[in-house]
Amino acid sequence: MCELLGMNANVPTDIRFSFSGLIRRGGQTGHHRDGWGIAFYEGRGCRTFHDPQASCESELANLVKSHSVKSRNVICHIRKATHGRVCLENTHPFTRELWGRNWAFAHNGKLKGVKSWPLKFYHPIGTTDSEHAFCWVLDQVRKRHPVPPKSELTLRRLVRKLADEVSARGVFNFLLSDSRALYCYCSTELTWLTRRAPFGKARLIDTELTVDFSKETTPRDIVTVIATRPLTHDEPWQVMTRGTLVSFRGGLPVRC
Amino acid sequence: MCELLGMNANVPTDIRFSFSGLIRRGGQTGHHRDGWGIAFYEGRGCRTFHDPQASCESELANLVKSHSVKSRNVICHIRKATHGRVCLENTHPFTRELWGRNWAFAHNGKLKGVKSWPLKFYHPIGTTDSEHAFCWVLDQVRKRHPVPPKSELTLRRLVRKLADEVSARGVFNFLLSDSRALYCYCSTELTWLTRRAPFGKARLIDTELTVDFSKETTPRDIVTVIATRPLTHDEPWQVMTRGTLVSFRGGLPVRC
Repeated sequence: MCELLGMNANVPTDIRFSFSGLIRRGGQTGHHRDGWGIAFYEGRGCRTFHDPQASCESELANLVKSHSVKSRNVICHIRKATHGRVCLENTHPFTRELWGRNWAFAHNGKLKGVKSWPLKFYHPIGTTDSEHAFCWVLDQVRKRHPVPPKSELTLRRLVRKLADEVSARGVFNFLLSDSRALYCYCSTELTWLTRRAPFGKARLIDTELTVDFSKETTPRDIVTVIATRPLTHDEPWQVMTRGTLVSFRGGLPVRC
Repeated sequence: MCELLGMNANVPTDIRFSFSGLIRRGGQTGHHRDGWGIAFYEGRGCRTFHDPQASCESELANLVKSHSVKSRNVICHIRKATHGRVCLENTHPFTRELWGRNWAFAHNGKLKGVKSWPLKFYHPIGTTDSEHAFCWVLDQVRKRHPVPPKSELTLRRLVRKLADEVSARGVFNFLLSDSRALYCYCSTELTWLTRRAPFGKARLIDTELTVDFSKETTPRDIVTVIATRPLTHDEPWQVMTRGTLVSFRGGLPVRC
């Protein structure tokens, strides 16, 4: 299995604190040694870093940890290979373009039989069940909506419907973004936490690191962090209900 | 205008020597200050780094310069904005998936009226004429070949035909790859150079740096570097003829 980390905020925000905790699970406090990747949105643009090396030993992960990249929307993944060999093209997040938007996707879980589902527009570059499922979901969205639907609710409901369909084939926890919203689907395991004023301190579970967010933020900031398992002590992580989708915009959840 | 740098080799090769010369042109020895980007292929996978900052001042460019990433196929670009504002989504190389392959594209030049050409499958995320032209080219390839053509010659000829068509609208020097071959089209300005045994020394034009390739290579290595303008002194850079496409595989040119 793998672990997911996402962030959605109303202002460009530095994810390094959470990232520092997560990458320890990529070989030190966890066994997810088979690569990692991160996608940072900047407006319509998207920066991605991928590495098939264990995140706890990756030079690139150290770079991401030591340089501030501020983003309103981030998807990150550390991999424990269950399907597909360890190589660059099999590391999440996967990306594709639809409607002139950058879509990024990362998955935690294992699916059965999904790789035989026919694809039309999008085709996997690597060999994971995850990338195949992503291509299938985008295919269905595109088939129903050759142009973007007017209502965001329509899109949210469609993503949930497709997620339900795929998750019938196994475990399908995922983070997905079209650069506007962050869609988080809990098939078995996903938690989230919103930080807003009054900000306090937080202490990572996986490494000795504490941050006082009141010194790093303004009173208007709203930042939600989504993770497979809680990353900090003493904060009210909300465990998502199985089979639900929560989408986030501007740091706040929009249930569908 | 912009500057292009490409590399195609028969073994994974470090591009840092050429890259060090090129990024000086992004604000020091040249005026291409409006961002830069690089795509490194690793098998079917592709790593990209993009930055809307001037390459000569970019922390990310320094990182790429200081870490060895070995690749058989590289596309790099430094930008002088002529069309579209300076932002992440307008920095080359642009990437898309077709036939389950990573395609990357970088352009030097300016095109007239191309942004009104209709698109079907691929749509630009940014606002450059370059990305529009790339989407149009991929649309045409996909329309004619919903699955990959059996012969590589067929694909090379189609790329050349499409390149001729676009370049009738302006200046269209480009580097394009489908992860297998590197297609280089010269509309007005492009040069290339193949290094192979016996290897000698090379000295960069844009900065004080000399490399003795005989110490960095094995006798079997074949490495071709493609650039808008020669990057080194005293090496036999070949100036491409206007209106021609040269594609490279394993470091060697395959004319069509």
